[in-house]
Amino acid sequence: MKKIEGGVTAAQGFEAASAAANIKYKGRTDMALVFSKAPCVTAGTFTTNVVKAAPVIWDRNLVLSGAPAHAVIVNSGIANACTGEEGMEYCRQTAQEASACLRIDENTVLVGSTGVIGFQLPIDRIRNGVRMLSAAKRTGIEAGTEAAKAIMTTDTVHKETAYEFELGSGKAVIGGMAKGSGMIHPNMCTMLSYVTTDAAIEKALLQKALSEIVQETFNMISVDGDTSTNDTLLVLANGLAGNDVIRDEDSDDYRAFYEALRAVCRELAMKMAGDGEGCTKLIETRVIHADTLANARILAKSVITSSLTKAAVFGRDANWGRVLCALGYSGVQFDPDKCDLYFGEGEEKLLIFTNGSAADYSEEKATELLSGEKVHILADMHMGEAEATAWGCDLTYDYVKINADYRS
Amino acid sequence: MKKIEGGVTAAQGFEAASAAANIKYKGRTDMALVFSKAPCVTAGTFTTNVVKAAPVIWDRNLVLSGAPAHAVIVNSGIANACTGEEGMEYCRQTAQEASACLRIDENTVLVGSTGVIGFQLPIDRIRNGVRMLSAAKRTGIEAGTEAAKAIMTTDTVHKETAYEFELGSGKAVIGGMAKGSGMIHPNMCTMLSYVTTDAAIEKALLQKALSEIVQETFNMISVDGDTSTNDTLLVLANGLAGNDVIRDEDSDDYRAFYEALRAVCRELAMKMAGDGEGCTKLIETRVIHADTLANARILAKSVITSSLTKAAVFGRDANWGRVLCALGYSGVQFDPDKCDLYFGEGEEKLLIFTNGSAADYSEEKATELLSGEKVHILADMHMGEAEATAWGCDLTYDYVKINADYRS
Repeated sequence: MKKIEGGVTAAQGFEAASAAANIKYKGRTDMALVFSKAPCVTAGTFTTNVVKAAPVIWDRNLVLSGAPAHAVIVNSGIANACTGEEGMEYCRQTAQEASACLRIDENTVLVGSTGVIGFQLPIDRIRNGVRMLSAAKRTGIEAGTEAAKAIMTTDTVHKETAYEFELGSGKAVIGGMAKGSGMIHPNMCTMLSYVTTDAAIEKALLQKALSEIVQETFNMISVDGDTSTNDTLLVLANGLAGNDVIRDEDSDDYRAFYEALRAVCRELAMKMAGDGEGCTKLIETRVIHADTLANARILAKSVITSSLTKAAVFGRDANWGRVLCALGYSGVQFDPDKCDLYFGEGEEKLLIFTNGSAADYSEEKATELLSGEKVHILADMHMGEAEATAWGCDLTYDYVKINADYRS
Repeated sequence: MKKIEGGVTAAQGFEAASAAANIKYKGRTDMALVFSKAPCVTAGTFTTNVVKAAPVIWDRNLVLSGAPAHAVIVNSGIANACTGEEGMEYCRQTAQEASACLRIDENTVLVGSTGVIGFQLPIDRIRNGVRMLSAAKRTGIEAGTEAAKAIMTTDTVHKETAYEFELGSGKAVIGGMAKGSGMIHPNMCTMLSYVTTDAAIEKALLQKALSEIVQETFNMISVDGDTSTNDTLLVLANGLAGNDVIRDEDSDDYRAFYEALRAVCRELAMKMAGDGEGCTKLIETRVIHADTLANARILAKSVITSSLTKAAVFGRDANWGRVLCALGYSGVQFDPDKCDLYFGEGEEKLLIFTNGSAADYSEEKATELLSGEKVHILADMHMGEAEATAWGCDLTYDYVKINADYRS
């Protein structure tokens, strides 16, 4: 497996486009199309929020139906969330427009929306945007990058990644794009994220792989503890790599595909955490030697979710008491006197807390370890063999600024 | 029942004092004593954090032992948390010093600490502080106020309240003080809070009343979602009102006492939420017509805990989508199309969201309702008869500022 350039258009047979449809933002693109010439097997995970945006319901229905997909249409600016029947009607009209322009069945069109909750979609502009996207779609890495840029809201960088991997029959490619910066606390799902591959894989196995991988990637990040109404992660597999369809969980091909899908999801999730609203640092918390995997995950996530820990990291203050406190209220039982805490990683790592008290460490060195773009926190529970990693970001003035006045 | 002036010294037989023991802060008091001439029946609730500060363990042991209490010694600046055996030894030495100075049994001395986690207590200064407190203790409302000021950390105002209420045998008084501004997300308990009463009540019944009342008062507030290692709520009842000891849950005396204890706890909890670190507004979220009480509480608490809602309130942005989103990810099942949202209260209240869509409301009026010192959010679930109220505060630049550099 090797990392390659590109995102959603890295795999064979995928095209993309972006358009400035004037939905809410001015002077930038705000709609994206991902299109596959061949019909795609799909898998998806969606928000667990009781309040689900219309596109979430639309996509989930299509994915569950087992029908193949040809296209994804996404807009940024307005989330099409919480609008009763009207929201579903807008999804249908978007798909109908795409169906007419791209000459594909209406039920092969997935849709996505991200932005302000509660405003109605300007459906005429959306339909016009679909027409522009259909005319502009093309192959090539650049088209994928443009699509990744068009779905940004408060994101400061676009997010995409791609990997090439080996199957028995030859090479295949998987790539993806994502957006997400605020209201990020995925639960069984993520913000908007679209992954494409030319590998051929059975639908049930694709969904199984995705559902497992989500647990250790997108579900292990948090920006602000708010689980969005729109979280959607879709994988489209068009089979153009020409491999024998992957059907066997015990095959080398499945393992190779799984590894590549995990790499894409992990990278997109980390990019999302590292681009949290207003943030200056990615915080990676690794918990080792926990008693169970579930507990390792809860502990790691509790640390990256703690507002006080996040604010301390922003201030480069090695306030390990807040880390210990966050482990303590996570709900997991453990003995604080047997927990070791470190800042930093590898050879650089600095023991901060051990045997129930502060270790004899240099504050200067600790501050230095908190000064980079990536801050590592390691908790050794000394209880068992389970481990987990979670990713978050610091809490800054800019987070407050962005969110005190997001709608205007 | 009527509200009266004062706090921990409002009830008969209680004295208090404060001292500047130079523990961490300069130029201010940082130790407090609450003393009862008569031995007190006690009840308490404590943090559920696995990491418990030594004073929490000390106090819990004393309260569970059933022994009477005479005094509480509290310091601010350093939390005496997470320090293994050393922390317990400091509690013991504090109690020993108080025992010698006040001529009371060592096991009648409760202790409390609040401040930075992980630093060791300067025990010589603490012992010296106990000597100063013992010499300075006196009756009167002012002494109680001084104690309430001495236990503040990042609090901007001291917090105390008192009520007089009628028992069959005559009047009794209950009063209390509290501190708490950050790391506030009580779970079965609160930050430091001390309540005194001259009513005579059986220990088991006092604990029962307190445990119930905590659920709807201190456990319904949150500043930042971080459950502290030090949360402690203690009630001391010295019986000097001379009433027949309250032993019967079905008596008028118990009901009168219960109502007064609830008023004190509710007021102290609201003061804590309204003085959240850096905050400019108290947010009160009331959920009505929920299916169960437990669900009403979860829903109300989810709204006041949402960082995005808190930031929107700071910006006076009527971003109701975030309120709905927070209800949605709370874990409670409901139909968003049947939920009504309002800002404001009483005659002033403004319908914002109904039938799955935004109501036809004036943004100007909504902004006005978000501009006061207290912001009311009301969610009508239309499912049943249960209701609950939770209190939080807005998320501001100053919260980040205070917490990015708390230790220095």
